[in-house]
Amino acid sequence: DMFESAELGHKVDKAAYERAVPKLREALLNAQYDLATSAKFPVIIVIGGVDGAGKGETVNLLNEWMDPRHIHTHAFPDLSDEERERPRMWRFWRALPPKGKFGILFGAWHTEPIVKRVMHEIKASELEQEIEEIVRFEKMLTDEGALLIKLWFHLSKERQRKRLKALEKDPHTRWRVTNTDWERFKLYGRFRKISEHYLRHTSTGDAPWTVIEGTDARYRSLTVGKLLLAALRERLDRKAPKNPAVRAERPQTPIDQRDVLGSLNLTKSLPKEKYDWQLEEWQGRLNQLSRDRKFRQMSVTIVFEGSDAAGKGGAIRRITGALDARQYQGIPIAAPSEEERAQPYLWRFWRHLPRRGRFSIYDRSWYGRVLVERVEGYCTKADWMRAYSEINDFEEQLVRNDTVLAKFWLQIGKEEQLKRFQLREKTSFKRFKITDEDWRNRKKWDDYQIAADDMIERTSTSVSPWTLIEANDKFHARVKVLKTLVRQIEKALDGLGKDKDL
Amino acid sequence: DMFESAELGHKVDKAAYERAVPKLREALLNAQYDLATSAKFPVIIVIGGVDGAGKGETVNLLNEWMDPRHIHTHAFPDLSDEERERPRMWRFWRALPPKGKFGILFGAWHTEPIVKRVMHEIKASELEQEIEEIVRFEKMLTDEGALLIKLWFHLSKERQRKRLKALEKDPHTRWRVTNTDWERFKLYGRFRKISEHYLRHTSTGDAPWTVIEGTDARYRSLTVGKLLLAALRERLDRKAPKNPAVRAERPQTPIDQRDVLGSLNLTKSLPKEKYDWQLEEWQGRLNQLSRDRKFRQMSVTIVFEGSDAAGKGGAIRRITGALDARQYQGIPIAAPSEEERAQPYLWRFWRHLPRRGRFSIYDRSWYGRVLVERVEGYCTKADWMRAYSEINDFEEQLVRNDTVLAKFWLQIGKEEQLKRFQLREKTSFKRFKITDEDWRNRKKWDDYQIAADDMIERTSTSVSPWTLIEANDKFHARVKVLKTLVRQIEKALDGLGKDKDL
Repeated sequence: DMFESAELGHKVDKAAYERAVPKLREALLNAQYDLATSAKFPVIIVIGGVDGAGKGETVNLLNEWMDPRHIHTHAFPDLSDEERERPRMWRFWRALPPKGKFGILFGAWHTEPIVKRVMHEIKASELEQEIEEIVRFEKMLTDEGALLIKLWFHLSKERQRKRLKALEKDPHTRWRVTNTDWERFKLYGRFRKISEHYLRHTSTGDAPWTVIEGTDARYRSLTVGKLLLAALRERLDRKAPKNPAVRAERPQTPIDQRDVLGSLNLTKSLPKEKYDWQLEEWQGRLNQLSRDRKFRQMSVTIVFEGSDAAGKGGAIRRITGALDARQYQGIPIAAPSEEERAQPYLWRFWRHLPRRGRFSIYDRSWYGRVLVERVEGYCTKADWMRAYSEINDFEEQLVRNDTVLAKFWLQIGKEEQLKRFQLREKTSFKRFKITDEDWRNRKKWDDYQIAADDMIERTSTSVSPWTLIEANDKFHARVKVLKTLVRQIEKALDGLGKDKDL
Repeated sequence: DMFESAELGHKVDKAAYERAVPKLREALLNAQYDLATSAKFPVIIVIGGVDGAGKGETVNLLNEWMDPRHIHTHAFPDLSDEERERPRMWRFWRALPPKGKFGILFGAWHTEPIVKRVMHEIKASELEQEIEEIVRFEKMLTDEGALLIKLWFHLSKERQRKRLKALEKDPHTRWRVTNTDWERFKLYGRFRKISEHYLRHTSTGDAPWTVIEGTDARYRSLTVGKLLLAALRERLDRKAPKNPAVRAERPQTPIDQRDVLGSLNLTKSLPKEKYDWQLEEWQGRLNQLSRDRKFRQMSVTIVFEGSDAAGKGGAIRRITGALDARQYQGIPIAAPSEEERAQPYLWRFWRHLPRRGRFSIYDRSWYGRVLVERVEGYCTKADWMRAYSEINDFEEQLVRNDTVLAKFWLQIGKEEQLKRFQLREKTSFKRFKITDEDWRNRKKWDDYQIAADDMIERTSTSVSPWTLIEANDKFHARVKVLKTLVRQIEKALDGLGKDKDL
């Protein structure tokens, strides 16, 4: 198996070690400096493996060899209540280093699935699903430019037993050996088998595992140091930026020219008198739902997309009008901040994930990647092509965490947009709603429609479907948004009840 | 008292209200737009007062009248465990809006002291202390440019009783009246008396309270809207930036030319052989302390300041070398990020406050305000003059929250600095430690020394004293740092034990 070569009894003698270290340290410091000044990418070092194989010692040594001010080391003990209310990956997103820095993550997202499977807390099929999700997550990290280094520290069973015994014997280190360590030791065989399977299936070209024999401290330290240096230098010295091949064709408009948005019946409308009472009706129901006791166990995320002047702001106000201001957060999405630009694309959405019992209402959203960024060329084709599945993965995690995710695309006709632009220019307190940029975007109307069509096709999943809103008539649009939202929340609340009854 | 004019039965009739609102909304929207585009300052609206006086309704209305996407409303229910481990004000720092945005804070930092005093949980003298701290905190906010609007919603005792009764009678609103409401109602007299005292003593020229009669919804809404508009317009239209008078003279070097730093004996040194065993000794003690069970109840913050090449990095590595990498965070302080620049000066230090059981090691710190920012003219004299007391307040909060705060000033002679600069230029893996900026700073040596002298004089408090380190000899400096740190932690751990025995 993958561990055999890490049971050969690798050793480095003292003289060779002491010859090698000064040069290695100097080279590592230089690489760290080059990374800090260029801020080209973040370095994520993931540490896994057998207890007692020198994980902590190695990390302490890396901090000693390099400049510890630019390394942030994270362990992941019990969840805090703030972490418990968010999707499981939230604590790891919080710990990601920005470009130019090192993050060392103990165990990271790898420990839990392995340990749970060893303890029979999850089934084999569930482990497979976790593996698949982790592979996708790590692919996103490396596609976003992270240098991901995954180190697995290994000890043979016999070595581990000896090491635990030795630690126990020495009064200075006795505290480090707990009952859990011996409990786990009894499961060594099972742990090894599952780890091996796990490592094999989470090793990929961009994010391979390296197994390191933990017995000899000098061998272990030199191996890690050299591996880290080689990986750093390779990325730092690479001439052209990484430009992954695009693995799928750019989606095309269907040859019969029929598309989802084009088939919408934009003449749908609602007369004023009906609108008034229907608005009141649905706002009332929304208000009642927001005060349902069970609502505290979930959260609601609402996404609005659509062309300029499609009525997103107006629809949002009809929702917030039914809610208590303490319960919602409106999030207008503009250009990312400097700190956000130093992180993977979705980081800025993860950081604002609300606790339970709250509404988050996005005016534009993470879909900017496949709309404005695609059309305006702010990211490469490879970037927006992979964004569809990254977004689907993100949304699946939200929904699994009892988030009601309601996504609305507001569609107006090109003529209707012109009318609204002209009206805005005339109305003094709407003047801030119309800018030169809006007129520029209008010239790219067709490109935006194609991008929106592709987006809906690729991200309207069974887990989180889009609702298309015919928005030429504002009354019709607002009521349809409210109605859809209310029904989605009702369904989710019902679901919560049923889970309990099982 | 301050509430009498809010018991006059103020009213606005429907016709007048409906005439006034459209203009008011338009003006508020325009002001909100001007604020968002200029991003000149943040708006913090604090909501306090009697239950049932329309606090929630008013905030909902403000969200309806203005653009809710740029308003963030916060309530402060029970503390999360992450909040419980930090100083009390942490949750409020987390909720501060950046420049250009609105934050509406329910109750904010005002509710707790009043309620605790009403319930006899704190003594009168403790209330006075809280009031004093809050006045200082709010002064910092307004000095930093925030527009702070404090609204107190009032109802006479009779009105409050009627309102609670009415809410209870209506099946749609019955849920809103809890036992706590009636419990509090019984304490109306005491609540009123203490609130009045509190309001009077926390009303200042820059951050006055406005008491609003809550009985009539139209009166209440119009009053708040107009007050907000007037405050916004006044600040937006002000021509010159606010330039507060400097209330204290710039500190001067004592006339006899004797100063603290100049009196240090920089010839102090430690021979290599003594250094080797003393380093081991103190590192060992530090390591043991970090593993003390009681250590999980506290945290350690270490601040290093000193001129370039004074040996800060080397001293930090001798500390981290004794610790497990999972337990500390090194924080090098450089220029603030864009998000940090949109907040009060100390915000970027509050945001990184660690949970308990951890070391935070700052290479440069919040003292940049009174060192580099003063000398280089990055902030006004008024800004750095007030920073001394702002920093003292900040540190007092840390120490009260069981943080061991160790502050080290590393002092070297001007000749020694030159020697070290020249050495760094020659040593390849130290080359990144010497830049043109270092040479430029060296030309301002005397200015930096004066600034450091003033800093030590004004921020070496009994709560958090500076330790001055004679650093011409690195061995002496590192051991003195470690020794001081160990003794401070030992003292704090002893203190924790004693508290328990009481």
